[in-house]
Amino acid sequence: MTPDGKPTPALLTRTALESASIPQITISAGSKITPKLPYFETGLPFGKNISTEPGLEQSSVEHAVDYGKIVGRTLASCTNCLVIGESIPGGTTTALAVMRGLGINARVSSSMPKNPQSLKTKIVEKALMRSDSKEPYDVISNVGDPMIPFVAGMLSTASEITNVILAGGTQMAAVLALAKSTGYDKDRVAIGTTSYIINDNSANFLETVKSISDIPVLSIDPKLEDSKFDGLRAYSEGFVKEGAGAGGSMIASLLKTGMNSKKLLALIDDEYSRIAT
Amino acid sequence: MTPDGKPTPALLTRTALESASIPQITISAGSKITPKLPYFETGLPFGKNISTEPGLEQSSVEHAVDYGKIVGRTLASCTNCLVIGESIPGGTTTALAVMRGLGINARVSSSMPKNPQSLKTKIVEKALMRSDSKEPYDVISNVGDPMIPFVAGMLSTASEITNVILAGGTQMAAVLALAKSTGYDKDRVAIGTTSYIINDNSANFLETVKSISDIPVLSIDPKLEDSKFDGLRAYSEGFVKEGAGAGGSMIASLLKTGMNSKKLLALIDDEYSRIAT
Repeated sequence: MTPDGKPTPALLTRTALESASIPQITISAGSKITPKLPYFETGLPFGKNISTEPGLEQSSVEHAVDYGKIVGRTLASCTNCLVIGESIPGGTTTALAVMRGLGINARVSSSMPKNPQSLKTKIVEKALMRSDSKEPYDVISNVGDPMIPFVAGMLSTASEITNVILAGGTQMAAVLALAKSTGYDKDRVAIGTTSYIINDNSANFLETVKSISDIPVLSIDPKLEDSKFDGLRAYSEGFVKEGAGAGGSMIASLLKTGMNSKKLLALIDDEYSRIAT
Repeated sequence: MTPDGKPTPALLTRTALESASIPQITISAGSKITPKLPYFETGLPFGKNISTEPGLEQSSVEHAVDYGKIVGRTLASCTNCLVIGESIPGGTTTALAVMRGLGINARVSSSMPKNPQSLKTKIVEKALMRSDSKEPYDVISNVGDPMIPFVAGMLSTASEITNVILAGGTQMAAVLALAKSTGYDKDRVAIGTTSYIINDNSANFLETVKSISDIPVLSIDPKLEDSKFDGLRAYSEGFVKEGAGAGGSMIASLLKTGMNSKKLLALIDDEYSRIAT
């Protein structure tokens, strides 16, 4: 929660998963701060600041993909639809850098209403100057973060076994770009996100995804402009937009329960009220 | 694998789970050594040597039960039968101490053919002299290990949701003894173990379990005396007997696949051959 009452998108995720009794598992794929609950540990170091140095070692990229494959196989065996979300600081910048490094003409969204495009582009261009290699693992090592190869690994094995929703915007496009190398079953993968990402004119999300793969993109409008709370209405004014798998989790909830988004919004307002008081 | 070729019971567990495509998740509930694969981290410190000091802090007992409840709820939501195994050094001694501390007249098995009963009893009696409390969390704190409260927590929530096999011998009796306090649904729980535990005359396993709860005890005779390998035949001569959920996993495999134990033994021999060469 920000001081002026804007909540983390994890509030939407949590409400959506609980409303549909969807079990959730937290994975640390390079988290600097230890989660305060049981979580999957992967032994990955946190990503470095790509504006000044490579994001991660080559060996960490391989480790991330390998461990992602193990976790993806295990979790996929337990469900008919695996929803994968993420949360990573500076994640739209590393995602942009990875896509540009892989030759994809992406413009990415921001969690701020004024997208700091020129700042991101400057960091990305500087970071990409460190290496000429177009080899995907080199690109990830130079300008990526540990989440991207880990989720690409998960996607690779999970999509062999079950349906997968990549729950997110920009970052999941970067995962998909790497997954071209790690492999996956296209017929079992969709991206699930919010309408705030799809409708963000500062980015080109649908175009970007289409240039990578012809998988479906599902979008939900959570109607947060109708919320009782300023902090949630801010999402409809361009703040936050997506994150922690919020869009995909809300889609999964509506698909599983048959609930509409009005009913879901009432639950989200209840949860906001619970944690704010 | 011991130098003379006796394998860890995890070899039986692994073969059983793979033969039936049963997904597995590793949990560190106080492991001193970090597992070399993705695993659930619970933030629990490893247990101390109860012969010289209390096994764990009171706060760790509560932490273990609470985190066990979270993990149990999550994993139970993913399956119609959750098999819980364990592996802990000195585990039969802490299990004996916990049961004696809770007023249960148990004699426990050993992973050695000559059960060092008097040594165990000496350690247990000395450890129990540190405290008069019969309060279960006090007993665990003084003479237990972190696995016992963690699995009791898992059992508590998991048995509300699905069927649970406590895969093990002595240690699972101790879990069950604590679970009287943490609560569980008796109608959804069974112990699954090997015939080597049931038939161990140095212990009184069935009697012990019966004195705690009237849940079913399932037992499998893996016929390891018919193995091609000395190291595996040693199990039928009183070495190892059980561990890492071997008995319960073999039972789950036979129940899921309809395979008989002869066929399973052939797979176990194949796996032994694979890792030994």
